[in-house]
Amino acid sequence: MYKAPVEDIAFTLNHVAGLKQALGEGKLGDLSDDLVDAILLEAGRFASDAVAPLGDIGDKQGARLVDGKVEVPPGWDKLYRDWAAGGWNSLTASPDFGGQGLPHMLNVAALEMWNAGSMAFALGPTLTMGAVDALTAHGSDALKQIYLPKMVSGEWMGTMNLTEPHAGSDLGVMKSRAERRDDGTYRIFGQKIYITWGEHEVTDNIIHLVLARLPDAPAGTRGISLFLVPKYLVNEDGSLGARNDLYCHSLEHKIGIHGSPTCTMIYGDGKFGSEPGAIGYLVGEENRGLACMFTMMNNARLAVGMQGVAIAEAATQKAIQYAKDRTQGKAPGWTGSGMSPIIEHPDVARMLVTMKALTQGSRAICYSCAHATDMSHHAEGDEARHWAERAALLTPIAKSFATDAGVDVSSLGIQVHGGMGFIEETGAARLWRDSRIAPIYEGTNGIQAADLVTRKLPLSDGKHVRGFIGELKQIAEQVRGSNLEGFGETADRLAASLADLEQATDWLLERLAAGDSASALSGATPYQRLFGLALTGAYLAKAALAEEEHGRDKRLSLCRFTAENLLAETVALKDRVISGAESLKAARALFA
Amino acid sequence: MYKAPVEDIAFTLNHVAGLKQALGEGKLGDLSDDLVDAILLEAGRFASDAVAPLGDIGDKQGARLVDGKVEVPPGWDKLYRDWAAGGWNSLTASPDFGGQGLPHMLNVAALEMWNAGSMAFALGPTLTMGAVDALTAHGSDALKQIYLPKMVSGEWMGTMNLTEPHAGSDLGVMKSRAERRDDGTYRIFGQKIYITWGEHEVTDNIIHLVLARLPDAPAGTRGISLFLVPKYLVNEDGSLGARNDLYCHSLEHKIGIHGSPTCTMIYGDGKFGSEPGAIGYLVGEENRGLACMFTMMNNARLAVGMQGVAIAEAATQKAIQYAKDRTQGKAPGWTGSGMSPIIEHPDVARMLVTMKALTQGSRAICYSCAHATDMSHHAEGDEARHWAERAALLTPIAKSFATDAGVDVSSLGIQVHGGMGFIEETGAARLWRDSRIAPIYEGTNGIQAADLVTRKLPLSDGKHVRGFIGELKQIAEQVRGSNLEGFGETADRLAASLADLEQATDWLLERLAAGDSASALSGATPYQRLFGLALTGAYLAKAALAEEEHGRDKRLSLCRFTAENLLAETVALKDRVISGAESLKAARALFA
Repeated sequence: MYKAPVEDIAFTLNHVAGLKQALGEGKLGDLSDDLVDAILLEAGRFASDAVAPLGDIGDKQGARLVDGKVEVPPGWDKLYRDWAAGGWNSLTASPDFGGQGLPHMLNVAALEMWNAGSMAFALGPTLTMGAVDALTAHGSDALKQIYLPKMVSGEWMGTMNLTEPHAGSDLGVMKSRAERRDDGTYRIFGQKIYITWGEHEVTDNIIHLVLARLPDAPAGTRGISLFLVPKYLVNEDGSLGARNDLYCHSLEHKIGIHGSPTCTMIYGDGKFGSEPGAIGYLVGEENRGLACMFTMMNNARLAVGMQGVAIAEAATQKAIQYAKDRTQGKAPGWTGSGMSPIIEHPDVARMLVTMKALTQGSRAICYSCAHATDMSHHAEGDEARHWAERAALLTPIAKSFATDAGVDVSSLGIQVHGGMGFIEETGAARLWRDSRIAPIYEGTNGIQAADLVTRKLPLSDGKHVRGFIGELKQIAEQVRGSNLEGFGETADRLAASLADLEQATDWLLERLAAGDSASALSGATPYQRLFGLALTGAYLAKAALAEEEHGRDKRLSLCRFTAENLLAETVALKDRVISGAESLKAARALFA
Repeated sequence: MYKAPVEDIAFTLNHVAGLKQALGEGKLGDLSDDLVDAILLEAGRFASDAVAPLGDIGDKQGARLVDGKVEVPPGWDKLYRDWAAGGWNSLTASPDFGGQGLPHMLNVAALEMWNAGSMAFALGPTLTMGAVDALTAHGSDALKQIYLPKMVSGEWMGTMNLTEPHAGSDLGVMKSRAERRDDGTYRIFGQKIYITWGEHEVTDNIIHLVLARLPDAPAGTRGISLFLVPKYLVNEDGSLGARNDLYCHSLEHKIGIHGSPTCTMIYGDGKFGSEPGAIGYLVGEENRGLACMFTMMNNARLAVGMQGVAIAEAATQKAIQYAKDRTQGKAPGWTGSGMSPIIEHPDVARMLVTMKALTQGSRAICYSCAHATDMSHHAEGDEARHWAERAALLTPIAKSFATDAGVDVSSLGIQVHGGMGFIEETGAARLWRDSRIAPIYEGTNGIQAADLVTRKLPLSDGKHVRGFIGELKQIAEQVRGSNLEGFGETADRLAASLADLEQATDWLLERLAAGDSASALSGATPYQRLFGLALTGAYLAKAALAEEEHGRDKRLSLCRFTAENLLAETVALKDRVISGAESLKAARALFA
């Protein structure tokens, strides 16, 4: 059973992402070390003791559509209420609406723990938080007053309605439409698919944020507006009124996250109400809906990255336990009686250490991304811009590298379990199945790579990414200067990987400057992985350098393994970026 | 829907694996080109038209245990009978018992097609063929006369019973026991798990081959005997007699291959018959059961490798079709109206070409392995030994590289499908779920790697593997000498990868000679992948070099992409083999 790694989480937040320094410099208001520790400890307790035990039943039973109502798995109603009562929905929300105004770093760490307990469960709150963010940034005061307090407390949950059958990655072609009414409200019509937690009875009301197109809207993404569409209309006194004209038509049959109802939603076909059309309220300005989405996209993408970290952590814990308990054969050098625990076999050890390295690297990248977001909110002027660019740069890497790690690490977890991994009994299988959606939704990892290369590298004319690589090189120099024997060849290996990153970055910026985006995009995915691996090496080195007595040997050895085994891949990735485009172009003949 | 790629298969058999040359030199008896073509064409037709359409229902419905009887999915009874009536069960079996005595190469190609149609379905026949092989090699004449004709025709199916809860990779600790009876037969007692197609009503009888231990047997693997244990005893006239004392206790709930009943089998607990104990007949000699298994292990491992090739091929076909049909966004350079087919996006194209390369590389490796087996059977003396060593060397690479490719390629297939990939509708999800068992069973891929390094590299004192690498280098030189522009940098890239392979091989042989098996085993998995990638590069080059007008441009471009993108990884893998062991050893502190 998953046990939240609170110490690892706190250490990474404090010493890798920079929470300790930010606290020391007073950049996070009056937040104290002690409060941080207390929050992490309590989140860890709730995730381990309350969420994780209900993960398997959530998978086995799944969400079900029965007589038009969505039933969540047994125990999840109460679990959600207890979770919301603990204040976990409101960590980062504005105090103006009952939120706690805490840094994103803390919420991201908590999200990791909820997701490790049950990704399907954590998805509901994740979407609610996204809706709260969007409404806080763009809603009118009236809308905020009515909806935000109950969404922040968790009394009502929220959803995001973007995708349509022919509009997934490309929202510009969506067909859902909105009609203006005389009273300033709108009627919404259309079908939305893949709507996470789109319908259920867990909360009395569900607040849908829906993208739709006005009759006179320009074509493409500049003609999309955002609407708040509640399941039940809300009376002036805050009580619930009539059922709005929307419903869940069906649930998807998915590989994983079975406990999360993934709904096809129908708006405005006349099932409820006196005339067809779901009542909606404009959020932000007409035709600016996509801009509203973009303001929350970084947070949402990072939240998905946390799912990758969470799955990887849970899978690693499970595999280590199994490998210590299971005995088979005799490992080289084994002197015990009978069979060795399989953890003694070098190949199994290689899998487990790789799992640990990818998990901790992903965690460090994601937390560093949250740190940048927090810093951008607590700074002004150039400093704010610096951190906003850092968050923008790290977001696609965090999302993609961590979600790929989720799939890869949980697959290694299955392999460690042998035959037991392929049957559903141990739970290793569930983690792998759940993990597979994360590289797809909230922008596929290929789209993250395109975003990284074409939008993020050019920030400040490429100066931002170059400055960042410069910072990372300093870590390699600190390793070199530390003279700690446990680092092995880390300094050289890390420096070489950072040089690979630098060369690939220069090449991409040069291609973009030349207007050759096709070549740049051809190498986008290998580049994104190269960046993630180099960051993993740098951040694990930073962790090992931190002046902490407790557990230093372990951090050193994980850093060294990463440098001397995993970082070897960066030279191959750089080569694919720089030399791979021509042959890819030629190979398109295969599909002619 | 899967369409068997008969042309690709025939081309790879003939021009890469060496079938055409073997036919030309008369090394395969009186088998003709025409017969080969006819067999492949007919197998392709049956796989595409009969097997593939029943793959999805097999997954959705699955095998079920109802009132003690195992029900296979709807339509599978008839499918199996039609398949057996087509003679497909007997391709390689001995003509003495009704078999066709054809080369393994043909059976391996046919297995690819059955598995691509439905891996869960193909598993049953695969196990029967394994039982036929074992019985043919080690059974007494009496046993062969009674059982083989009906197992070769497919009238009866067969199973292999090895695994027990505490004896998976390490069979030496198995507990199932056999007691001698006065009439020369045995009574068998014990529990076996993960028994593929262990129980069903598709055939009138099921012939179980069961490993068990005699009371006076030595400890460990030298004390295991092999028994034939039929579900129904067979009377002297060949008619079926009493039900034997064995039954299926339960079916496993698995990630995939749902149509294949994976049984826990109970032998000898008194449920059937007048006294407890299933009647068994010794196969081979007492205490030599594991040796009997080893004679068929190469074929069984290669058969699992074919599952990887099959899944990869099916996933690639599905993804290409989807990527041509689905439109989203505008790819760079897209001049058509509206959105581009996603195949136009460089990142999607990269995924698809990678899928094709891994599929065709895996296929070439597996067919070459089957070719070596065939050559060893049709030669004598040194030549037979040469080819037996080649088959022994290629088997772990074929099994592991192809099954890893099955997982990786089907995962890319899901990614190409985006959100549609995560729901079960398209069938992309099923391929990924089915694929995951293949790197585990029939010896995990980690065990394949250990076998490759510690048993196969030392064959003929390392001369065999060195000679093989020498042959591969000649392919690189032929590329260099061809002056075909379409090869791009293939000659240099392939030569570099083969040099990586050579250095890693030398290092491993040196470590083994020094008695340092721990270091050698630490690098076994990266080495195995390095070998598979280098072979992929060499074999795709061999295909592109073949003097064939039709489709040469496509083969050249796939070869070039492989060389200029995928082979970049070999230098990293070599580095892990040679420099990775120390840090892995140090990192064990993480689990102390």
